[in-house]
Amino acid sequence: MTEVFAARRERFLSDIGLASNQGVLITNPIDIAYLSGFTGSNGTIVLSGARHLLFTDSRYSERVHLEAPDIEVLIPASRFVGVMFETAKNDGISSLLADENHLTVAALRSYQTAADGVSIEATAFPTAKLRMTKDLDEVARVRRACEITDQALAQIIPTVHVGMTERQLALRLETLFCELGGDGRAFESIVATGSNSAIPHHSPTDRAIAQGDLLKIDFGALYRGYHADETRTFVMGEPAAWQSEIHAVVVQSQAAGRNALKAGVTLAEVDAASREVIKDAGYAEFFTHGLGHGVGLQIHEDPFVRPNDTAILRDGYTVTIEPGIYLPGRGGVRIEDTLVVGQDSAESLTTSSRELRVIG
Amino acid sequence: MTEVFAARRERFLSDIGLASNQGVLITNPIDIAYLSGFTGSNGTIVLSGARHLLFTDSRYSERVHLEAPDIEVLIPASRFVGVMFETAKNDGISSLLADENHLTVAALRSYQTAADGVSIEATAFPTAKLRMTKDLDEVARVRRACEITDQALAQIIPTVHVGMTERQLALRLETLFCELGGDGRAFESIVATGSNSAIPHHSPTDRAIAQGDLLKIDFGALYRGYHADETRTFVMGEPAAWQSEIHAVVVQSQAAGRNALKAGVTLAEVDAASREVIKDAGYAEFFTHGLGHGVGLQIHEDPFVRPNDTAILRDGYTVTIEPGIYLPGRGGVRIEDTLVVGQDSAESLTTSSRELRVIG
Repeated sequence: MTEVFAARRERFLSDIGLASNQGVLITNPIDIAYLSGFTGSNGTIVLSGARHLLFTDSRYSERVHLEAPDIEVLIPASRFVGVMFETAKNDGISSLLADENHLTVAALRSYQTAADGVSIEATAFPTAKLRMTKDLDEVARVRRACEITDQALAQIIPTVHVGMTERQLALRLETLFCELGGDGRAFESIVATGSNSAIPHHSPTDRAIAQGDLLKIDFGALYRGYHADETRTFVMGEPAAWQSEIHAVVVQSQAAGRNALKAGVTLAEVDAASREVIKDAGYAEFFTHGLGHGVGLQIHEDPFVRPNDTAILRDGYTVTIEPGIYLPGRGGVRIEDTLVVGQDSAESLTTSSRELRVIG
Repeated sequence: MTEVFAARRERFLSDIGLASNQGVLITNPIDIAYLSGFTGSNGTIVLSGARHLLFTDSRYSERVHLEAPDIEVLIPASRFVGVMFETAKNDGISSLLADENHLTVAALRSYQTAADGVSIEATAFPTAKLRMTKDLDEVARVRRACEITDQALAQIIPTVHVGMTERQLALRLETLFCELGGDGRAFESIVATGSNSAIPHHSPTDRAIAQGDLLKIDFGALYRGYHADETRTFVMGEPAAWQSEIHAVVVQSQAAGRNALKAGVTLAEVDAASREVIKDAGYAEFFTHGLGHGVGLQIHEDPFVRPNDTAILRDGYTVTIEPGIYLPGRGGVRIEDTLVVGQDSAESLTTSSRELRVIG
């Protein structure tokens, strides 16, 4: 682990390009986790050519050393804002860059008051773009999150029955994530039965699963800060013809998206490969969202796989492929995997069967 | 429910004092929930003398009407920022106030670019102060969250045993919150055994509960956006003399804090009433944090009950009282309730026994 975070900081600094009197002030917890490993609730990083410093408070004196192996840690006795600017000045820093997408106006104003002699400039940080390419440690964590997600699904399927509510199923699934070694759920699970399955984002309700329902489950475990994202759709009893049909179209569309995914192609090309199958089957208007998104320290992050985006996929991106067909008032199907992009193909880190499985 | 939120908006507007050409732009999800009832992930409220408008997107077309009964809702076909400023201009608004504690520098810049002809001014909002006084609907929700929390504790105690891990106990407790009708946990539970109980904020680990341990559990359910917060400390088997002693001191200190809590007294007076007991027993240096905090739509919110704060408690505040004694390397005790402040006394909404209970 040592040096993993130092390497990320060097990439960040090289991307941002500091003058010798400049430093960077990092306050976004996602960026702090990415650049140091530290996940406590109170931390700030100051980077410059001279030093890499992580400030936190005494509540985290043990945890910070376990999580952040390769950065100098300072735990001031009092609130650390004053100490932080004092230290920066002593290191010859007269200008600190801060992230305009995280810093509030009030925080900027309060820093400007406290930063006696140091100017604060809010600017765009490259972190979201840098985080698109996962290193080996990150891929390993996403992979483990996906394994736990697959295992939870395998354990829950035999217990699903008519009469079970959406909330009960979601709760059992999220409990399994913890029992299987995960750190909880990556996001609020979507468990949607019957006509609810036609709502792309549906919060679990007390609706009981009924015979003949489509059952759409969009779920994922969290593991050491990293997220998994997977969707499977089942049917309760023998499927009606329309259910089999839209499920088969989505299976084919999703496979086309996975097969198109590799380094060097554009986001739009991958979206088109998957969307084309749904269009050819006559369901274009019922696929109402983008094809996928990046997944890592955040459940939704760059890049977003959608039409008209000509950005190019690179080796080491982790993204979802998740086409769906939603027939309002009737029901819907989505199939989603989390994949890691390679040179000639992409590997799916979620591997549960994608075929239409009949429950009960 | 109808009119509850409208009344809150009127209080907010009267507090902020708008000129006739001014409006307010509200983007903080906590404020949106408080002022409209809406809890979706994408919403913005614009208030003026002319109109109260809630903007969201089509994913929330059903939910917004269930949750937000007394505000005009607009769901524009495209991204709503443009429509929002257009609508404001049509209503004669030339200046919009935004919350400096929530608005990022990037959001301010992007609004300033988009808000053709409308100026955006970042300023302090009174919402955090207004939210200190809970109305009847809010007290009812905190009360229900506290009932679920008490019930979960009552159900879990008979199952706790030597060998169970901190994580297993936390997971079971949080599962019970959902099974008992809650919407999940209010915060990451603290389950701390043995010497871990001396750490005020401890994340559950795989440490197994051992004979002779103190077992400190700080936990709470979430119910319709509102939080409960409760701590109880147990002992595994017959208590050692030092364990009984610090527990008895904390029980007495906590009762003194609860008894001092009522409308008209200062935060510092309540803190002192509780702290005095611990000081008199010779443990002053081992009570290392403030006595309590407000609880409502956030788990920690104004007011903070601590020394030297001369702000006055009012009828309808919901606050915690949570003294503790932490003996490093040995163990610690904390007892905490969530209470609602009344004219002559405070009512504890969490009511589990505070006596030292022996488990096993």
